[in-house]
Amino acid sequence: MLSYKVDCADPSIGLMPFAIVDRRLLVIDQRHLPAAVLDFDATIFDDLLLSIEDMVVRGAPTIGLVAAWGLALEVERLAKAYLPDGPALFLEMLHVRADRLKDTRPTAVNLMHDVDMVVNGVRDFVESGGDRVDADNVSRLAFEIAEDLTSANLDSNKRMAEHARDLVPDGARILTHCNAGALAAGGFGTALGVIKQAALDGKRPQVWVDETRPRNQGARLTMFELMRDGIDCTLIADNMAACLMAQGQIDLIITGADRIAANGDVANKIGTYGLACLASVHGIPFYVAAPLSTFDLSLDDGAMIPIEHRNIQELIDPEDAMAAPSHARAYNPAFDVTPSRLISGIICDKGVLRPDYQVSITQAFKLAKGDA
Amino acid sequence: MLSYKVDCADPSIGLMPFAIVDRRLLVIDQRHLPAAVLDFDATIFDDLLLSIEDMVVRGAPTIGLVAAWGLALEVERLAKAYLPDGPALFLEMLHVRADRLKDTRPTAVNLMHDVDMVVNGVRDFVESGGDRVDADNVSRLAFEIAEDLTSANLDSNKRMAEHARDLVPDGARILTHCNAGALAAGGFGTALGVIKQAALDGKRPQVWVDETRPRNQGARLTMFELMRDGIDCTLIADNMAACLMAQGQIDLIITGADRIAANGDVANKIGTYGLACLASVHGIPFYVAAPLSTFDLSLDDGAMIPIEHRNIQELIDPEDAMAAPSHARAYNPAFDVTPSRLISGIICDKGVLRPDYQVSITQAFKLAKGDA
Repeated sequence: MLSYKVDCADPSIGLMPFAIVDRRLLVIDQRHLPAAVLDFDATIFDDLLLSIEDMVVRGAPTIGLVAAWGLALEVERLAKAYLPDGPALFLEMLHVRADRLKDTRPTAVNLMHDVDMVVNGVRDFVESGGDRVDADNVSRLAFEIAEDLTSANLDSNKRMAEHARDLVPDGARILTHCNAGALAAGGFGTALGVIKQAALDGKRPQVWVDETRPRNQGARLTMFELMRDGIDCTLIADNMAACLMAQGQIDLIITGADRIAANGDVANKIGTYGLACLASVHGIPFYVAAPLSTFDLSLDDGAMIPIEHRNIQELIDPEDAMAAPSHARAYNPAFDVTPSRLISGIICDKGVLRPDYQVSITQAFKLAKGDA
Repeated sequence: MLSYKVDCADPSIGLMPFAIVDRRLLVIDQRHLPAAVLDFDATIFDDLLLSIEDMVVRGAPTIGLVAAWGLALEVERLAKAYLPDGPALFLEMLHVRADRLKDTRPTAVNLMHDVDMVVNGVRDFVESGGDRVDADNVSRLAFEIAEDLTSANLDSNKRMAEHARDLVPDGARILTHCNAGALAAGGFGTALGVIKQAALDGKRPQVWVDETRPRNQGARLTMFELMRDGIDCTLIADNMAACLMAQGQIDLIITGADRIAANGDVANKIGTYGLACLASVHGIPFYVAAPLSTFDLSLDDGAMIPIEHRNIQELIDPEDAMAAPSHARAYNPAFDVTPSRLISGIICDKGVLRPDYQVSITQAFKLAKGDA
């Protein structure tokens, strides 16, 4: 199981954002996509922490799986170092590592879920395994748990795509936000899995991809994935979505999720809430795709979900390349039209005009003529 | 009048985005702000066209005024070259130049308005001025018209700010989009003029400034202006506005306008419509500030306003520096929460969950337990 590697070229599985090769945990460095596909070695525990904190890997399910594999590698090291002296120090060190991992990013619950699966599995075995508890068996178990989580995740991506088939009509024009594809979840992805299934079914979906500021996961990652899969996709700025909805150019919206509370409130990439409001205003269905590992039944509602605030330099002066794939299609209207019914007042040099604007504008111009 | 120059340091007037110095039309190159304050020489007619097309200058009122001054300089050249041979060829060439200017950007109507003011004034004089029609008098008239348009604009900015005083409460938290300040309109600006007046009145407004993708006029220009004026301002990504509204952190929204139809429909920077929808959903007043020269009574409603589509490279791989001022304050939540009432369905590995989510989520987990 230490040769875990999914062939990126296998279309039935899709791209994998990480691999275990010769006891090394290699992840695709998503900070450089789409300009370059570079590996980042997250084998050493501090590098694993950095890879999550600095968004070398991102996407709720991917973060969870990479953390599980990285923790399994750490279990192997800790077991060799501490287990010969008994379980107490080993388990204490394991919990310290697990807590550090869970602190890297607070919002996505898959991280907590997958880390707990490894820690609890290992702890239960150490506390009840008797003679069989040794470094080899403990390590093997940790890797088995990571492997099970990974295949369960790939499997659940496919099942989500299957369940959602009825939601996507032929030629559907779909808006998605951020990246909820293979890079975020492995294999098919979550929201993008639904879209990929529609493409495999011959429905020829047309996808609107918003940039997803400030880290441009839509422009960089979702455009990369969809173009790689030959799916029709067009890049827009986040602020263009409302205008497309008003023009009747969006049939449905699908996003992923980072954590879902017991009442169905969804925490996801900043901007998701605004899209859901706009979808509601325009009567457009708004779907969320996420495996059960993203649900957190311990929270009654979304107000209890911790929201991560990131370094403001991401907004002020992005250091990473933010470009989309060079041949990306894009749609770039410079203006939009706001119907007067949404405007509380128009401040002009003759005063603050109020509805009925037809009347108040005419009056303002009469006044102006009188001045001249 | 060929020494038109407003002292940028005079706080009662504010920054001017252009100046006429020694028969040269110099504009602040807004592509380089805030990193550098560089002049661009728009004296030569082709450079004038480029300065508008390439957004060296932007903002509906500024575009109109720069076009008027640039056209006045061209009137002087054309009058010297063609008027000695009679008015016909002179007027023909003037109309060709005017049409080229009006074609540079289609949406903002101030450009059409201000160019027409110069052309119509000059044509009327040439056709009815008799003996007084010579190159000197024609040029002088063109410059007088540009000067009148400029002072009328500065004056109307101040009057808008005055009219809007009652709309801004003490400590108001105001969201603005794009740049409707001195750089866009000279002097006080339009929407930012209202905010600057509130600051002068001691109301200590707090301004949320969205980036305004894809050209980041909010991040680069509005943050630059507000920080220069010592007004409290915080940068956000466009997609964060909805979340702030839901948190009750926005009291009102003010934007400028590029063209206003007779019924009050407003064309403005892409993203304005979405903000107005979101404001309506959250019960937040949404104001537009614009002088009468921005109104186009020839259009019944907003559907008739031509919308400019710009080069998609602006989205795919921005060549200009997009950074905000280096010490800008910013707010950077990575996630937001979408209440389940806005979600049509949650696609998970157990199926598509529908409202009531409290019930359907519980069922999905029961189902998952049954599988295990």
